[in-house]
Formats: sequence, C-alpha cells, structure tokens
Amino acid sequence: MTERYGAMYGPDITFLGVDRCSWDAVPDDADVVILGAPFDGGTSHRPGTRFGPQAMRQACYLAHDGSRPSLALRVDALRDLRVYDAGDVEMFGGDIERSLRDLETAVTTVAAAGAIPVVLGGDHSIAWPDATGVARHVGWGRVSMVHFDAHADTGEIEFGSLYGHGQPMRRLIESGAVRGDRFLQIGLRGYWPGPDVLSWMASHRMRSYEMTEVVARGLDECLSEAFTIAVDSCDGVFLSVDVDVVDPGMAPGTGTPEPGGLTTRQLLDAVRRCCYELPVAGVDVVEVAPPYDVSDVTAYLGNRVVLEALSAIARRRRDAVSGETWDPRQPLLDGR
Amino acid sequence: MTERYGAMYGPDITFLGVDRCSWDAVPDDADVVILGAPFDGGTSHRPGTRFGPQAMRQACYLAHDGSRPSLALRVDALRDLRVYDAGDVEMFGGDIERSLRDLETAVTTVAAAGAIPVVLGGDHSIAWPDATGVARHVGWGRVSMVHFDAHADTGEIEFGSLYGHGQPMRRLIESGAVRGDRFLQIGLRGYWPGPDVLSWMASHRMRSYEMTEVVARGLDECLSEAFTIAVDSCDGVFLSVDVDVVDPGMAPGTGTPEPGGLTTRQLLDAVRRCCYELPVAGVDVVEVAPPYDVSDVTAYLGNRVVLEALSAIARRRRDAVSGETWDPRQPLLDGR
Amino acid sequence: MTERYGAMYGPDITFLGVDRCSWDAVPDDADVVILGAPFDGGTSHRPGTRFGPQAMRQACYLAHDGSRPSLALRVDALRDLRVYDAGDVEMFGGDIERSLRDLETAVTTVAAAGAIPVVLGGDHSIAWPDATGVARHVGWGRVSMVHFDAHADTGEIEFGSLYGHGQPMRRLIESGAVRGDRFLQIGLRGYWPGPDVLSWMASHRMRSYEMTEVVARGLDECLSEAFTIAVDSCDGVFLSVDVDVVDPGMAPGTGTPEPGGLTTRQLLDAVRRCCYELPVAGVDVVEVAPPYDVSDVTAYLGNRVVLEALSAIARRRRDAVSGETWDPRQPLLDGR
Amino acid sequence: MTERYGAMYGPDITFLGVDRCSWDAVPDDADVVILGAPFDGGTSHRPGTRFGPQAMRQACYLAHDGSRPSLALRVDALRDLRVYDAGDVEMFGGDIERSLRDLETAVTTVAAAGAIPVVLGGDHSIAWPDATGVARHVGWGRVSMVHFDAHADTGEIEFGSLYGHGQPMRRLIESGAVRGDRFLQIGLRGYWPGPDVLSWMASHRMRSYEMTEVVARGLDECLSEAFTIAVDSCDGVFLSVDVDVVDPGMAPGTGTPEPGGLTTRQLLDAVRRCCYELPVAGVDVVEVAPPYDVSDVTAYLGNRVVLEALSAIARRRRDAVSGETWDPRQPLLDGR
Amino acid sequence: MTERYGAMYGPDITFLGVDRCSWDAVPDDADVVILGAPFDGGTSHRPGTRFGPQAMRQACYLAHDGSRPSLALRVDALRDLRVYDAGDVEMFGGDIERSLRDLETAVTTVAAAGAIPVVLGGDHSIAWPDATGVARHVGWGRVSMVHFDAHADTGEIEFGSLYGHGQPMRRLIESGAVRGDRFLQIGLRGYWPGPDVLSWMASHRMRSYEMTEVVARGLDECLSEAFTIAVDSCDGVFLSVDVDVVDPGMAPGTGTPEPGGLTTRQLLDAVRRCCYELPVAGVDVVEVAPPYDVSDVTAYLGNRVVLEALSAIARRRRDAVSGETWDPRQPLLDGR
Amino acid sequence: MTERYGAMYGPDITFLGVDRCSWDAVPDDADVVILGAPFDGGTSHRPGTRFGPQAMRQACYLAHDGSRPSLALRVDALRDLRVYDAGDVEMFGGDIERSLRDLETAVTTVAAAGAIPVVLGGDHSIAWPDATGVARHVGWGRVSMVHFDAHADTGEIEFGSLYGHGQPMRRLIESGAVRGDRFLQIGLRGYWPGPDVLSWMASHRMRSYEMTEVVARGLDECLSEAFTIAVDSCDGVFLSVDVDVVDPGMAPGTGTPEPGGLTTRQLLDAVRRCCYELPVAGVDVVEVAPPYDVSDVTAYLGNRVVLEALSAIARRRRDAVSGETWDPRQPLLDGR
Repeated sequence: MTERYGAMYGPDITFLGVDRCSWDAVPDDADVVILGAPFDGGTSHRPGTRFGPQAMRQACYLAHDGSRPSLALRVDALRDLRVYDAGDVEMFGGDIERSLRDLETAVTTVAAAGAIPVVLGGDHSIAWPDATGVARHVGWGRVSMVHFDAHADTGEIEFGSLYGHGQPMRRLIESGAVRGDRFLQIGLRGYWPGPDVLSWMASHRMRSYEMTEVVARGLDECLSEAFTIAVDSCDGVFLSVDVDVVDPGMAPGTGTPEPGGLTTRQLLDAVRRCCYELPVAGVDVVEVAPPYDVSDVTAYLGNRVVLEALSAIARRRRDAVSGETWDPRQPLLDGR
Repeated sequence: MTERYGAMYGPDITFLGVDRCSWDAVPDDADVVILGAPFDGGTSHRPGTRFGPQAMRQACYLAHDGSRPSLALRVDALRDLRVYDAGDVEMFGGDIERSLRDLETAVTTVAAAGAIPVVLGGDHSIAWPDATGVARHVGWGRVSMVHFDAHADTGEIEFGSLYGHGQPMRRLIESGAVRGDRFLQIGLRGYWPGPDVLSWMASHRMRSYEMTEVVARGLDECLSEAFTIAVDSCDGVFLSVDVDVVDPGMAPGTGTPEPGGLTTRQLLDAVRRCCYELPVAGVDVVEVAPPYDVSDVTAYLGNRVVLEALSAIARRRRDAVSGETWDPRQPLLDGR
Repeated sequence: MTERYGAMYGPDITFLGVDRCSWDAVPDDADVVILGAPFDGGTSHRPGTRFGPQAMRQACYLAHDGSRPSLALRVDALRDLRVYDAGDVEMFGGDIERSLRDLETAVTTVAAAGAIPVVLGGDHSIAWPDATGVARHVGWGRVSMVHFDAHADTGEIEFGSLYGHGQPMRRLIESGAVRGDRFLQIGLRGYWPGPDVLSWMASHRMRSYEMTEVVARGLDECLSEAFTIAVDSCDGVFLSVDVDVVDPGMAPGTGTPEPGGLTTRQLLDAVRRCCYELPVAGVDVVEVAPPYDVSDVTAYLGNRVVLEALSAIARRRRDAVSGETWDPRQPLLDGR
Repeated sequence: MTERYGAMYGPDITFLGVDRCSWDAVPDDADVVILGAPFDGGTSHRPGTRFGPQAMRQACYLAHDGSRPSLALRVDALRDLRVYDAGDVEMFGGDIERSLRDLETAVTTVAAAGAIPVVLGGDHSIAWPDATGVARHVGWGRVSMVHFDAHADTGEIEFGSLYGHGQPMRRLIESGAVRGDRFLQIGLRGYWPGPDVLSWMASHRMRSYEMTEVVARGLDECLSEAFTIAVDSCDGVFLSVDVDVVDPGMAPGTGTPEPGGLTTRQLLDAVRRCCYELPVAGVDVVEVAPPYDVSDVTAYLGNRVVLEALSAIARRRRDAVSGETWDPRQPLLDGR
Repeated sequence: MTERYGAMYGPDITFLGVDRCSWDAVPDDADVVILGAPFDGGTSHRPGTRFGPQAMRQACYLAHDGSRPSLALRVDALRDLRVYDAGDVEMFGGDIERSLRDLETAVTTVAAAGAIPVVLGGDHSIAWPDATGVARHVGWGRVSMVHFDAHADTGEIEFGSLYGHGQPMRRLIESGAVRGDRFLQIGLRGYWPGPDVLSWMASHRMRSYEMTEVVARGLDECLSEAFTIAVDSCDGVFLSVDVDVVDPGMAPGTGTPEPGGLTTRQLLDAVRRCCYELPVAGVDVVEVAPPYDVSDVTAYLGNRVVLEALSAIARRRRDAVSGETWDPRQPLLDGR
Repeated sequence: MTERYGAMYGPDITFLGVDRCSWDAVPDDADVVILGAPFDGGTSHRPGTRFGPQAMRQACYLAHDGSRPSLALRVDALRDLRVYDAGDVEMFGGDIERSLRDLETAVTTVAAAGAIPVVLGGDHSIAWPDATGVARHVGWGRVSMVHFDAHADTGEIEFGSLYGHGQPMRRLIESGAVRGDRFLQIGLRGYWPGPDVLSWMASHRMRSYEMTEVVARGLDECLSEAFTIAVDSCDGVFLSVDVDVVDPGMAPGTGTPEPGGLTTRQLLDAVRRCCYELPVAGVDVVEVAPPYDVSDVTAYLGNRVVLEALSAIARRRRDAVSGETWDPRQPLLDGR
C-alpha cells in the first residue's frame, strides 16, 4: 500500500501525539514503530480488545505532544527515541486467518526496516504474528520470549480453530519462530490449561512461573533467573504483556480475569527491568478491553506499560553509550 | 451431532426454563425452537452480542418455570405453544463463514422439522442464515421479511468481507431467498448507507420506512401498509428485530446506536401486530450487547420482544381456531 | 418515642431542606409530613430500595432550601403548604412484619394529626401500611386507590410469606381498608400475575388499565374514567406510585423492570392530574432502587413525582379558595 | 495567533474527520466552522462538559471520513457544505471571564469570515459569547434566539458571579445582542427560576414554552408559532440546544437533569425544522457531560443534533436554489 | 422435601457445572455439597448478596464442565472430590428467623450425610446456621473457626434484632457451638465495634488479628499462630470468608467496604494454607454483592476462593494418602 | 459572616455527624475544624472533586453519630478530640482567585482560633491556601509539608494561569510560607513534570520520593528519613494527601490517575505514622472525584484517611500525657 490505513475505529490518532507513518514506508530514522491491532476475533470470552489500540493511544491526562519525560528513568522516550505510529492494521474480527496474516506482514515489514515494532492489541492471538514477524528479522529461533500473563496461551484447538487468543504461544513454538526452552512465562495462575497441555509445555522445556512460585520466591528472583535464560543463545527478546497478569481488581478492563495477580506497580517494575536489562526487539501489549474497564484505569495501565518499555529501551541505549548504570535508589532530584 | 451442544458461554440454561432439545433432534410436538447464536464476529463497531443469547434467556425477575401468561394477549405462550430451547450453535467469532454456515444448517433443520425457529443473536450477520434456513423450508423467494432496525444492513463489502452485520439483507436478496420487493424495513434513520447502496435497494424495490416517514404518517399506518405487501404472493414471514430500532436512550445495550428511534412500547406493539396479523415462520432478535447495557434494560427488552412474538403467535393460532379477534381496548379484567 | 429517629442510612437530611419533625409529634400547622420507609425486605428480586428515601430526598441540583416554585403550576409547594420531614421509620429488612407494623403506626399517627402522609419507599410492601394508616383516619373502606405500576401487586403468597412487595394490594382489599371496586391501576403489563390472581382481582371488581388499553384509548381518557370511579362514594384518595410504571429504559433504577411503560412525562402529567383533580389524602412513591440507577435519573424522577404531587395539592387548595382553574395551555410568562 | 490551538483535552481530532483550520484563519470557502468550547467552569452542579467537544466530535460508529449522507434529508452536509473544524478554544475552567472573552473573539472572527459558527460546548455559559459573536456580525439586536432547554438560563447572580451556565440568556438580553421579544425557549420545566426571574423574563417579553404547554398544544404547533416570531424583524437566528431539554432517562449525560423532557426523536425533528425553515446564523450544542453518560448515548445525541442541524442547513440552501420543498412523508427509496 | 428447590433467582445452575443433588438426599459418595444461601435480609447497609450464589456459581470464563485443574495445587478439585450442588435454600429476605432456621436444617443435613458443606452467601448472617450445622455433626464446641473479615461480626443487637450480618459470631459463641477461644479472626480493621463489644470478645478469649498486626508481623506468621490454636482440642475447622477482608479497591462488590484490606493474592494464599493445613469441615463465602461489583471482579474472586478451598482440601486428602507435601516453590512444569 | 454557609452542593451535612460550627465563629473548645472546599476549577483534566467534601463526609456504612472508635489506635477521635464541621466555603469554580482567597481566609481564621483545620477537597489547588493559612498561624516558613501524591504539583503556569491543581506547591515555596527544603513528597511517579520544573525543585532542595525509590528502599525507611527532615527547625507539619498517590486500580475516583501507586493499606499506615509521630497542624485530603468512582471506594478511602489522621492525632495527644507508646504489634483484644 504505502497509503496509511489510519484507524479502524474512531479518529486517526497517534500514540500520545508522536508522528505518523505508514507501516510499509517506515522512515529511515525510526527506532520504534507503533502498530494498532484492533482485533478481538480470537477472544474466547469477553470481547472488546478491538478498542484497545484507540484506548491505549490516548489514555493520558497530559498533552498529546509526543513527549513523556520519565521521572524514574530520566529519559524522554518519545523524543530520545524516534517513535512513529503507523496506525492500525485492518483486522476484520470475523476472519482471523486473514487478519493475523496481514498483521504479520506489517510487523515483519517494520522489523525489517530496522525499527522495534510495538503492537497495541487486540487480543492475544496477535502474539503469533507479532513474534513471528520479529523472528523473521532477528533470526528464526533466535528470539526468546518474556511473557507476562495469567494464562499460558498454549492451547491446541478452541472452538474448532487453531487460531485464537488461547493458542498463540503453541503456534510460535511449533513453527520454531521461538524456542520452547527460551519461553519465559510470568504470572500464570488459576485453572487452565489442563494436564495435557501442561505436558506439552514441559516437553518443550518452557519455563513458567506460576504466581505461587512468584510469591514464594519473590518476583525479582524469578525475573533474574528468567532473564538469564532469555539471553542464552538468543539474539533478541520479544516482550509480550497481557494486562490480565495484573489482578483484575486493579485492572478490570480485560476479557478473562483471573484473581490473584500482580499489582500494577510490580508489572511496571518488571517491564522496566526487562527492557533495561535485555535486548528487546519487539513488544506487544494486549487484552485491554475498554468495555469492561472502569474510569479507564486499565487503558491507562496499558499506556504506561508501553511508556515504561520505551523509556527503559531509551535508557538502555543511553547507558550503552555512556557506560552509566541506572540506580533505582537514586533520589528523584539528585543530579537534576 | 444429536448431542446438545449446550452453551458457548456460561452455564447451559434455557429460555425462561422451557425444555431442552438438540436442534438436530427436534421433538415432533415442537411448535417453536429457540436457538442461541452467540456471535459478534460480524460486528463493525462495539462487540458484545455474543452474550446476547445468555442475557435474553434469563433477563426476567419471575421464576424460570417455562410459563409466561401474557396480560395483554391472554395466552401463556410458553405453555400454549410447545417451545423448546436447543441451546447455542457453536459460532467461533474469528471464522464468520464457518459460523454462519453452521447456523444455517441448524435453522434449516429446525424449520424442516416443522417448528418456528426463534434465533437469539448475536449480531445481525445471522439474519442471512436465519432467513435462508426458513426459506429453504417455506419456499425460496416465498418468504417476506419484516425488519425492524435503525440500519438497512444492505451493504456490499465491509472490512474486505461480504459477511458482516451490515450486509445480511443484501445477501438474502441476491440469493433470492427473500424477494427485494417483499422486504419491509421499519425504523431506519441516520447517515448510512450512502447513495450507491440506496440505489441498489431502490432497484430491488425494497420498501424502507425511515423514521421521518414513520413520525409523519404514524407507525400504525406504516405497519398496515407494510403488512399488506408482506402477504402478497408470499407464504411466510420472517421477522427480524434489531434492538437498535429502539432509541439508544432507552436501549443502550447495543453496538451501533443511532439516536431518534422508536420507544420500547412502540416496538412491543409493532412486534405483536406483526406476529398476530401475519403468518410468521421465523424470528430473530439481534444486537443486544450486554457489555454496553445498563441494569440489563436492553436484555429485558430482548426477552420481552421474544415473549411478545411468541404470545402473539399463540393468540393467532387460538383465534384461528376459535374465530375470536383480539381487542386491544378490552379491559384487563373483563372476561377473567 | 417523640425523639426523632433520624436516618436509617447515611446522614439525617430532610426532603430538599424542609423542616424536621418527629412523626409522633406532628406540628399543628403541618399540611404534609414526609416519612422515609427505607425497606427492601419485601423485594422479590433486585434489592436496593432501602436507599430510596435518602436518594429521593436529595436528588436535585438546586439548593436544599425548602422552596420549589413550580413553573407549571405557579405554586411553591414547599412553602405554600407546610411540609415537614419526619425522617425515617426504622425498618429492619429481615423482619417484615415488625417493620410494616411500625410504619403503619407512624402513618396512622401522621394522618390522625391531620397531615397528608407522603411516604418515600422502599419497596411496594409498604403500600399496605401506608394506605391502611390513611384509611384509619379517612374511614375504613372510604379511601380509593390510584395505583401507577407495571404490576398488580395482588399476589397471594410469595416465598412462603403473606407479606412482600407483590401482595400489598391484596391485603388492603382483604382487610377492607380499600374497596376493590375503588382500586384503579394504571400501567400494568407483562406476564404477571397468572389467571388465578386475575380472577381474584376481577371478582373484587378492581379496574386495571393494562398498557395495551392505555395506548389504544389514550392515557388521558383512561385517567378521566378512573378518576370518576375514584370519587364515587369515597372520601379520600391514596396515590401509590411505583416508578416501574415508567419504562425501564428511562427509569432503570428499580428492581423488577418491565419494558413497555409510560414515559416520565406521562407519569408526571398523570400524577399532577390526580392530585389536582382528586382529594388526595396520602401518597407513597416506591421502588426507586439506587444501586441499579444511572446518574441518579430514577432518583430524580422520584423526587419530581413527589414535588409534582405536592405542587398539584397546593394548587388545588389555592384554586378551591380562589375559584380559579389551572390551564395547562397558559404560556409560562403570561400573567407573571 | 493563526497557529491552530488543537485540543484542550486528548488528541487533536476533528468533527467526524472534516478538515482542520484555525479560527483566525478561516478559509474563504468555509460555510461552517466548528469550534470546541471545552469549558465547565460555569456549571452550578455536575461538571464534565469540558469533555463535550471531544465526545461529540467522535461519537459515531461510522468511519471518520468527513461524509454523512442524511437518509432523511438527502444531502451530505459534510460534503455539500464546506465544513471545517477549528479545534478547541483554550478555556481554563478557573477563569470564566477570560475564557468567555476568548471564545467570543473566536466566534466573532468566524462569523465575520462569513461562516456559520457551530460551537460544541461546554456548559451553557458559552451561549453568551456564542450569540454575541454572531450578533456582532449579523447585527446587534437583529438575531433572534431559538433555545431548547429544560431551564431558562436567565438568572441574575449565582455563587457571586454574573457569569455561569444559569445566566447567559439574561446577559444576552441585557446587552441588547438579542432582543428579549425574539427569544424563544422550548422545553422548560421543573422548579427554577423563581418569581423574580420570571417577572424579569416577562417584562422583556420573552416567549417560553414550558413542557405543559408543549404537551397540551403539541410541539409542532408551538414551534410554528415560535418560528413566526423568530423571523419577525430579525436577520438571523441563533440556535442553542441544551441536551437537557431531552428527558434525562434518555440522555443521562448532563449536569442538571430535569425529568419530563422531550424524546430524542422530538428534539431531532425540531432541530431539523428550525434549520430548514429559518435563516440560522449560528449554533451551539451544550451540556453534554460525558462522566455522567451511559454507553455514550448522550454524546451520540449531541453528535446527531449537530449533523441534523447541518443537514437541514444544507438542504435549505439546496432548495433555495432548486425551488424544491422537502417532504417528510416521502418514502426513503422514492426517487433514489 | 427431597425435591430440589432449584434457584431462588434466575435459572437453576450449578457451581461451574458440577452435578446436582437435593440437600435432603445427599448422594452417598458426596465429598462436598454446595448450598446457595441467597439472602441479604440481615444486611445493615448495601444489599445485593442475594445474588451472590448465582454470581459465584458462574463467574468464570472457562467451560462449565465440572472440571478445574489447579495449576498451583496439581489437583482437579471438582473431579478428585465428588462435589454436588444442592441449589439454593429458599430464604425470604423479610423473615430472617425462618430463613436462617431453614438454612441450618439444610447445612446440618448435609454435614450429617458426611459431606463438607460449602455455603455460598448471602450476607454474613448465615455463618450462624452454617457453623451451627457443622458443629451439630462434628461436635458442639469441637469446631474452631477461621474467619477472614474486615469486621468482627460480634455485635449484640442491631436494628432491634439479634439476627443480622453484624452478629453471627456472637450467637455462635453464646450457643457454645464454637468456643470463643478457638475463634480466629484475620483482617479486622476500621471503626467497629466499640469498646463494649471488644470487651465481650476479650472476655471470651477470641483471637482477632487486626490489619495493623497483620502488616507489622506478616500475614504468614499470624496464620501460623492462628492455625496452631485452631487445632488445639478441636476436631474440625469452619472456614468463613467474608470477601470484604480484601481491600474494596480490589473487591468493590460488597456491602460494607472498609479500606485497607488484604490483596486478593493474600486471601487466596491464606485460604489455601487453611484448607491444606487444617481439617476443614465446613466453608462459607459471603458478602459478594453483585449490584456493587465492577465487571464481576468480586464474583470472580468469590468463585476462586471456593475453588482454592476445594483444591487445597483435595490436595490435603491426596497427600494424606501419599505422604507427599505440597511445595509452593516447585516450578509449574516440574514433574508434569 | 458568622452565619454558617452550609453546603455548596446537596444537603448540609457534617462529617459523620460531628457538630456544626461556622468557620468564623470557632468554638473555644475546638481541637479540629473540618472545612469543605468543593472546588474543581483548578483541575487540568477530569473534574468532579467539587463533590469530594459531600462524598467524604458520608462515605461510611456506620451510623452518622459523631463517634468512630479506632480498632488500631484505641481512641475515638471524634469524641476524644473536639471536632466540628464548619461546612463548605463557597468556591465558584469559574473564579479560582476569589475562591482560593476565600478559602485562605477561612483556614487562617480556623488556625488562628487554635484548631487544626482539616480541609476536604476539592482539587489540589487548595493546598496553597490551606498551607498558607496554617503558616500564618504557626509561623511563616516554620511549617514543613508532608505531601503524598503521584504528582509534584510544582508547575509554573498552566492554561495561562498561575493557579491550578498542578501548581500549589510552587506557590507555597515561592511565597515562603513553606520552605522548599522542608517539603517532603512521597509517591511521585510517571511523566510529569519535565526537566525545567525538576531543576526548579532541586534548586529549592525539595525532597521527593519517587515510587522507584519507595519500592527499592521500602516505604517505612523513606518515611522515617522524611519525618526527620520535617521536624528539623519547623514548628508544625502540614499533611496534604492527594488520593491519587494510591494506585488508580484501587482508587479510581480521581482526575489524573497514574498507574503504579501505593496500596490503600500503605497510605493509611503512612498517614497514621505521620500524624502520630509529627506535630501536624493542618491537613487536607484532595482529588476525590466521585463521578469517576466505583461503588464509592475512593470516597470511602478519603473518609478513612481523615479518620486515620484524626485518630493518630488523638492518640499522639493521649500518649503525650500518659507517656505510653502505641505498639502496632499489640493484638487487638489485649488489654481490652
């Protein structure tokens, strides 16, 4: 195409006012390209994530001016990085195959252009094309996955379909795009999947941190262990954040709420560590379902997860040059 | 199959407690078979109608005892008619073609068994398989359509698909299942479709009553005119009720709200007239979207539309035998 | 007692700021005494009317200054009448017998003091003690009832109890407090009660206007007919307004919503006519359930129903003295 | 300035995708310029109308493509007229004097450029600068006002201020911008203002249609009478639509809800008549308060009021050329 | 009776699809029998818990298939245990004495049949009959109580009644069913009860962990201490979980919200420990009030509390046989 | 004046039923005077805090009887202290200068009378007059500030105004009322302000604990450090609590929600420590915005923050006399 598609729902806006581009004409200077994946055709229960991109792009009380200086990380990711928003990919909810294929094309194109694709979901079905697109660029089987979620998303077939938001991680491992033993899941809990699927996961040597382990050992210890695995024989990391990893009491705007999750504070800190410590090559933030949200708190969370990731990437790049190391204990106003 | 599928979402309940059956094993004595079509994969905007069947089956403050004596019509439709609920048809949102095909099979089977199918949507995409299934039984091109809606639903292609909730009426006319000149639309308004589609509609000699005409002439006069057309050279009528024909201020639980609609009282009276005066052979009630509803008022409305239709059918059958004529002016307690 | 009980829930406020009193020490100059009946122990479905009195007392955007000049009726009911608010009667939800008995004592005492009791419900169970209390003063069997409601409320036994919000009208007729043939019901609809109860109603010569008749004949004609019956051989009228007579699409904050009701405009006009044309001796406004309300619209309606009743009573009294007749067609600013 | 201010809250979008301009650089071909007045600093009760412009600009399920062909009026206002959106005027809520002054400058400039200003409120305080700005262009005292509202908005001082959403109409008459005897108010009701203010209104010979008169005589008769007054010795009409003229049960998203209002259908038809029959020179649509809205139904209504006004203006212009007269009884598909 | 009563409100469903039974005909193989107590007649403030059983039975996004394999505990409680759902006990809200008596009969009967009763409330009034019924079976005074709650529920008389949701624990201790010095309360906080009631509690040697102590010492230490007391000279434990022990910010769907509570994660872990470490003989989960809930998050929590309890009971039984000990630090996929 | 103004919105109630006074006639025995500041004219985004005072005064399920015995602190602040509620200060939203000036007068008068002013906001603009009024009494520059907030509120000019809820802390430091190096901010996070403002803050030697530092070091350690600074060369402490310091997932009813905040438990414990350990001379609780709240959980939190502060002040006074020290580890029933 090259003509920008714009928005599938509502006005054509960009993430907090960053510049526009078309995904098949990524500017040369692009560090990051945001893509909207307004799709909930793969949802097994409550729909609404089609409005996730629209909601996450604008959930902020500050001016939409393409600038967000992080208090914590002392970078302005939207300026220190060159961030574009390529608008939505058209993804008709009633045709999941076509929709995921088109998204994969867009992600692949963006990655090939040398930019980090940041995909705003949408339901978690999109992780398959998202990580696949990145793997085509970074190297097939050379991308590890850090996956925050209440659910493993490794189902086989649901409602008669191989596609859906309960299955993308299986498809990714089956295809070889991502190695099972470089698949790190954090925050799982509840009553799904059953033994068969768990066996399949074990047989592929996935590493899944259920909340019980997270609580017993501490989130930071689990993350450190996971991050060590992630960079072993891999060249890039895909970060996939399902907001339902947070407790539904704090993030109600999602489709398959599972009580007992992380706090928002924990998620933001974990995303920050992931993007600061690891070579992240692609990101998606999924399962924000505005119809079930309350005063937009879940949309705000999604927006902040994106900003946290971008800020940490920017800081990582800066420190790579300067040799500095970010210190979480440094008082806010020290050195200002 | 023959094994009842049950419910796609939530527990397997029946419409206000009527008996269960499987759609491919309709009991001989069935007058009416209710089918759930929990599908919103064809929705162009706000989703959520997948929960419509579940919501409409239970939106009532009375006991779920399979009995609802109508004050107005003096029949107990759920007892005077033999009504079964065949549960949901599995309709994966991400595969509209398969989903509509499976629904069509179910509706066709029910109609072939001699029962009136009453389909609980779901988005309006389902009107295509619904009316097609009835036409296969009543006669291809021998079914007229009475269609309450804010929208014509005669679009050509949307989001790259021939299927969707904006296009079913076009597909029905193109296939010949329903004749364009026996297509009666009531309640249209707003800003869609544009001239091209309207020309197509005119060329097929559809008769569409926009709200301006309805207000200027009165709803009753418009209905009388439409009903006369409906029974001209047709053997049965399909009644398709999109709840968005009612003003969104009174029925907010829907996906594409268009201000300026009917009152709920008008809709109930119109549905009653339709089913009392015409030989209705199939019904669907669509576009109830619980995530956008308020205190279930729209789900209640959907439930009452179904009951109103069934009660009028029951009364029509009784009067056909007795020769009586129902009088809307008769005081409630006269003749009790 | 004589000590004011105050409020069962929340702070002790009065209706729009009118003066306080205790129900067992009604001031001599009282024309109207408002009583709160914060009770939902008789509710068969959604509870919440316990918060009705609190909500109706304050649902207004104007100052709580004990003044409300009616544009339409050209009186300031809260000043032209001497209106007191006696606070709530303590009504424990778990003991309906004691609660209704205590309310009856309060209403009887107020009526005996020569004031018109206006009771803010609470569920409709309270109509039994309300009208009984008024009948003890006006004369047993000498009070007619004008009853706006979606439901007849003439049930026999529910959930094993003679008491409840589905049965008060039966109890009133059985006791003889109100004659069955002076019982006027407006707005009934839906699927309750069944034939047995309807037969009982017919046998007591009740006159119930179902919505079908209301629509077919027009509300004004039905009211005129009903009002003629109401004043035949009766000395006073009890007005009982269940807000569910209004369509739930316009008044969602109620427990047993039945689609197809009056508009708020119709209800306000009907209440006005009732209180202007008839010798109203007692009023209750019931079934406002704030937990199911939206932006307080139903609480506002309840507040305005009370004000409309009081304004019409005030105007009736003024015109009785002046010989004037209120003209609904008079322009607002004429004669100002 | 000349640099477009953009949006005070959220992303800088335009009304349904029409082209942008700056209010102080109105393109020569402009027929209509939309201005956002995101201000609720004059609200006496529930705030939130600051988000009205944002909400009304996007409350639509159709593509934001700058095209809206009206089924009823057979024009595409957004294309048949040249409509621009000048974005918001910055209006700090805490400084009503400065904010209204800046808005007046913008409206005056737009009107002087020969375009019809259509102002999206905001609370009703803005009617003062809106109509003043138009009067500066059309002629001081040569603009009549058609004002749909539950409230007269003719208060003297509130909360110690001459400015506020209860007083704009008084200020307009006092200044002479609009003549009192060319001030037509439709839909008033309730309990405000009191006798003093009503006397002031009468003394300025305003004509206010309270809902009682509207019901008794019929809305159409009242409108016809009002429209006759409006064009007597005036050169233009300002249309001011407060959404609270509609019943809060149908339009809950507003700050000072008064039960017993018009239906949305009545309002749309009335706005259409006004803009088709009268020489409208300016429009504002006010008091949409999203925080109190439900599933955006009130925002949708505001959007449709704007479109109805624009469509009727477009049709009026077309018929002025063609000599045709629009017929509300014409079937939708006739002549297509 | 023996005939199953079914559901007091809505359709007759079972907890996540487990098999049905009648409480007075408990199958011999039953390990657990679920009972619904749809009662809010004892509520001192916001009602709505009558819909708790209905909500908790179905609050899940997974199939209602009577199977829930716990990721954390590696059991499928609904299959490893034989779980039946006996439906609701009819509990008329207006008659608390009769209602609690009938519930006690049902619980006693279930316990006598050798099954663990799990009662879905309902307000906390039901803890009296619940624990009494279990004590009749296990031994009077031989049951200790582990009670998670923001409130002590040891009041004397409220609203003139000994019965109510603020008093059950006092009644239990007074009757001797549960010993005061085997009464363990966790999570208390706020401003109730006052000194008199606290003295009464101290005099009965209750052990109540207020949140300040819980925070200062850590929840795990408090639980360990409490559990030691619970098994001293007692033969069984009754677990009573009031969801308001969780912070209302995370679990808003409850009637008497007290800020500063546990997180959902803490509650789930604590329930698990309780049922894994102690000989639990009865459970109730109370005070889920759907009208105040948001996107069902509190209903989901109630559902998960039940599942967590059942899973831990199942695992305890399995480990009792196998000699294994559950290790919270074991990685999810180890040993799969 | 001396005549009590009463309530700006709704009925004139007092905080949980404490006695009334007028702010310019503070009774001699007053320890604490509560003032309502129903103002949101300084809000940069979502409004609604004008209803904060009304909401916080009544957000409680207990009787409004002027008594609240704290379980944790073993005092009844509303009785052990002499607490009055002076009602609201009239603060017109459209005139921030006049409104803040009038509030400052009221606070100054209360402080001068020897009572601790506790101001219920309203937006955070009010901190300027609040702390200024206290400084006029305690000593200019002799008051330190403990400020819980997600935002620094040290902006220069917004929307063209020096006044607003993003700037009060700057104004306070500029005026010298509070020393910059005695300004302790806890809970900051997110993406505001930018480098210039941070430099200004650093240059004034403010001490701001961003959430990253709070998490890394622990809240208690940060508080201890801050409290040490607070009492160095200062005679009193002003405590300003913006509820948005709590995570919006737990406290959604606020205008500028920033994910990643404290839990409610943390805030309550921190407020308690502050008021128990420091000589608090004034308090405000701000930014509770009821239109965005859910089941009143944020209003409840605001109410509890006030009670926690008052209870700790009462306990501090008691222990100052008795020499006792409060022990958070003491079991609830010990010593009762």
